[in-house]
Amino acid sequence: MADDAPPAAELTAAAGTLKAQPLGLDTFRENIVVLARCSHVLRPERLRGSRKVEVQANGRTLMASTMIGDDHLVGPDEIGLPQPLFRRLGVKPGDPVQIAPARPPKSLAAIRDKVAGVSLDEEAFTAVARDLADHRWSDMEVAAFLIACASFMSPEETLALTKGMVAAGSRLDWDGRLVVDKHCIGGIPGNRTSLLVAPIVAAHGLTMPKTSSRAITSPAGTADTMEVLARVDLLEDQMRAVVERCGACIVWGGRVNLSPADDVLVSVERPLSIDTPEQMVASILSKKVAAGVDKLVLDLPVGPSAKLRDGREALRLKKLFEYVASHLGLEVDILFTDGSQPIGRGVGPVLEARDVAAVLAGDPDAPADLREKAIRLAGRVLDLDPALPGGQGEHRARELLDSGAAQAKMDAIIAAQGPSPLHDAALGALVHEVRAASTGPILGIDCLRIANVARLAGAPTDAGAGVELLKRVGDTAKAGEPVYRIYGSDPSDFGFAVEAAEADCGVAMVGALK
Amino acid sequence: MADDAPPAAELTAAAGTLKAQPLGLDTFRENIVVLARCSHVLRPERLRGSRKVEVQANGRTLMASTMIGDDHLVGPDEIGLPQPLFRRLGVKPGDPVQIAPARPPKSLAAIRDKVAGVSLDEEAFTAVARDLADHRWSDMEVAAFLIACASFMSPEETLALTKGMVAAGSRLDWDGRLVVDKHCIGGIPGNRTSLLVAPIVAAHGLTMPKTSSRAITSPAGTADTMEVLARVDLLEDQMRAVVERCGACIVWGGRVNLSPADDVLVSVERPLSIDTPEQMVASILSKKVAAGVDKLVLDLPVGPSAKLRDGREALRLKKLFEYVASHLGLEVDILFTDGSQPIGRGVGPVLEARDVAAVLAGDPDAPADLREKAIRLAGRVLDLDPALPGGQGEHRARELLDSGAAQAKMDAIIAAQGPSPLHDAALGALVHEVRAASTGPILGIDCLRIANVARLAGAPTDAGAGVELLKRVGDTAKAGEPVYRIYGSDPSDFGFAVEAAEADCGVAMVGALK
Repeated sequence: MADDAPPAAELTAAAGTLKAQPLGLDTFRENIVVLARCSHVLRPERLRGSRKVEVQANGRTLMASTMIGDDHLVGPDEIGLPQPLFRRLGVKPGDPVQIAPARPPKSLAAIRDKVAGVSLDEEAFTAVARDLADHRWSDMEVAAFLIACASFMSPEETLALTKGMVAAGSRLDWDGRLVVDKHCIGGIPGNRTSLLVAPIVAAHGLTMPKTSSRAITSPAGTADTMEVLARVDLLEDQMRAVVERCGACIVWGGRVNLSPADDVLVSVERPLSIDTPEQMVASILSKKVAAGVDKLVLDLPVGPSAKLRDGREALRLKKLFEYVASHLGLEVDILFTDGSQPIGRGVGPVLEARDVAAVLAGDPDAPADLREKAIRLAGRVLDLDPALPGGQGEHRARELLDSGAAQAKMDAIIAAQGPSPLHDAALGALVHEVRAASTGPILGIDCLRIANVARLAGAPTDAGAGVELLKRVGDTAKAGEPVYRIYGSDPSDFGFAVEAAEADCGVAMVGALK
Repeated sequence: MADDAPPAAELTAAAGTLKAQPLGLDTFRENIVVLARCSHVLRPERLRGSRKVEVQANGRTLMASTMIGDDHLVGPDEIGLPQPLFRRLGVKPGDPVQIAPARPPKSLAAIRDKVAGVSLDEEAFTAVARDLADHRWSDMEVAAFLIACASFMSPEETLALTKGMVAAGSRLDWDGRLVVDKHCIGGIPGNRTSLLVAPIVAAHGLTMPKTSSRAITSPAGTADTMEVLARVDLLEDQMRAVVERCGACIVWGGRVNLSPADDVLVSVERPLSIDTPEQMVASILSKKVAAGVDKLVLDLPVGPSAKLRDGREALRLKKLFEYVASHLGLEVDILFTDGSQPIGRGVGPVLEARDVAAVLAGDPDAPADLREKAIRLAGRVLDLDPALPGGQGEHRARELLDSGAAQAKMDAIIAAQGPSPLHDAALGALVHEVRAASTGPILGIDCLRIANVARLAGAPTDAGAGVELLKRVGDTAKAGEPVYRIYGSDPSDFGFAVEAAEADCGVAMVGALK
């Protein structure tokens, strides 16, 4: 049926004009309009089947869902605009806003096609990505698309989706400089190597404009932890200025408009806990290509509770990354790393930032696993520098870290990005210790369980919430000795976390833990 | 992670209490609460990841999504309640309402399991159906579940889902009487045989408590057309009273609480245009079992633009219906019928009601195809009566229709159900004729195209909108002669319909139509 839809331009012929009326309502990231039941332009009860409308102002067209408001909320000649739609439209109160009943965008055919087992081409994915970026799909439709893609998606389709996602956003240009980056697919709590690799690489002199994500299903993303140290919600110009000055940055990608279609997909993947290889590859590589990266080191942790459970899965993902990257002109160097337990001690923004600071400061108590992994990864990135003799990367990385050059570079990056609203974030005041019931060695630490406890405790939204690991696999714990601490500040969240840890703390020993 | 969730009862330990504050806002069928940014109980910005909360009042717990309201909308000690949540909670302004951050219901694991190719058992589907009925899933999650099921679902799973859906609602009991019914899987515009079969069967003396749906993706469901003639939104007691008096009813199932989980699934299938065999079987049979039906005649139209394109598809669906029905103790008699073109002349509630009235009145101009199909189906239902000699059903049905007994019965049913709010619905005032460009025979009429034009014109929300077919396949049209008429009342909708008909009118002739 979508085939019958005329081009969007014609649609506005049926539109009417209402006066913008900002409402004291925040609908999070959904676009909602509130219409009077007796609206002069659209009778809302006529929208029973689809509540979707197209709103147009300042040459910008957005899709929104409708709600009905009483007389004191919105008049018949007004369109009630909650946040974020009011902001996204960029109108002032009383400004004219055109509104028309929306017909489903043609790109929605992709859902039915995928359900029917049809493989989509680049044109189809490009249309999907463009309409996602324009907020023309509902959450329901995005969910349907993601699940349909989760069933089956060929490497060619993953490439086409990635290209479509790049095309739907801006693309940074770095004037011919060699741009490198390092990325981890996630899943390992505490694994904050980017905050070490970026300053090491920049101290060496390479350009690494790191755009990172906030947590999707984890207790902290790189952006969440960096936000404890510096502002991360930089606009493109601001990010560029930081990179000009320091050679690197560590910012949240959300405001740079790189692959905005991916932001929409991620916003639905998050509540649905969807994390397929194909979406992962398209998401990561579209962001990297859009950020102007030439060469990329990819960290793929493998372990029983990691995203990649075994070598076969890891190899399959590696090949998919390589296939898509090679067709995008992006050079990738992929490492399989130890994903058998969390990295570092802290899990949660404040705790992870503390680990990073200790490594940069050369603190002898700094977590050795985090330090060594960061050196290894930074070394691989430095090996991408044509000016460096082969195999010298790791040595050079260690040198830059031990000399304090990386620390100085990180200080400069933090100063350039500016102070964060979370600058004074402290560890949560509520503390619970999980203790060993008997004496013996730690046999295993489950990444998913630890992440779950930290997340329930409030991380990353509550930066000071999380888990502090006091033991690693192979360490011996005495009976009654604490194995990890849970931090939190909201009693309800904290209670959930303690409850979950009591049900299954995620640390395996001979005999139970209490 | 959902595995860690404690039972719902414990969750309310973390709840706080706010005062109910009805808001002049209607969110259609979504449950939304509006909290102050500085709410005494829940800080909404803490809900970034999941906006879902559990609200509890009068012993009833419902899931809702959050929005943030300014001071003048909602105070820090209040919970703003738009419709329909205010109504669903059954509170008065100022009443205490408990609210707690919601953790995802355990049943959500079904989505990930289905994506991973796991077959679910009856316990899992029962939990899904119960949580759907309690509005504990978001639309996004429902969409994800439906699409995941669309990829693969075994007959055993379809049976388990059907049983779960029956268990999640009420079940009507008819004191041992033989209860018969007739159902069509849909897809054929104008195919309103239920409005003829029910009065014929009741005139014979059998019990047929017909609960029907509103249109999902079509321009009219049985309930939409019946609503032109009588009230259809009856509660269970009212429906029962009609059946006691008349032996039959034709009501909308939505208020009888039969398979409420199905209502939730359908509300998401509709905007997504999902219509898989498995969902269809579970939806139809759960409603029939819940309605207390013993024996069911099922109409499966087959044709190039019908839901079933060929005999192979039809046979597969027939076997699935028979498998599930037999395990539910429901006797089904399945007919493959001609689905090569629309049935009757009208497509859309008012036009279809006119066709039905003409057949009942014995009008010689009444559409013969609708009349003959209704007689055939009613005959098959009557053949389910043990008291009638085998093969007499069709003869008896014809007799009851021709004698006026069916007309009298329909009048009684209409009187018993009471007057409809659409009682004075008239044909739309806007009319467009689609005309033949040259003289020749009509080669084909596309069900999907005709349905699409009628739907774009406004049907079924606008009862007077639709398509009136003036020719059938095999008829000859002269050049310039109208082939069908489009009716509508909203200029914008009507414009879309005319545009779609001009792009492809759905009627095949040698030479073009204009």
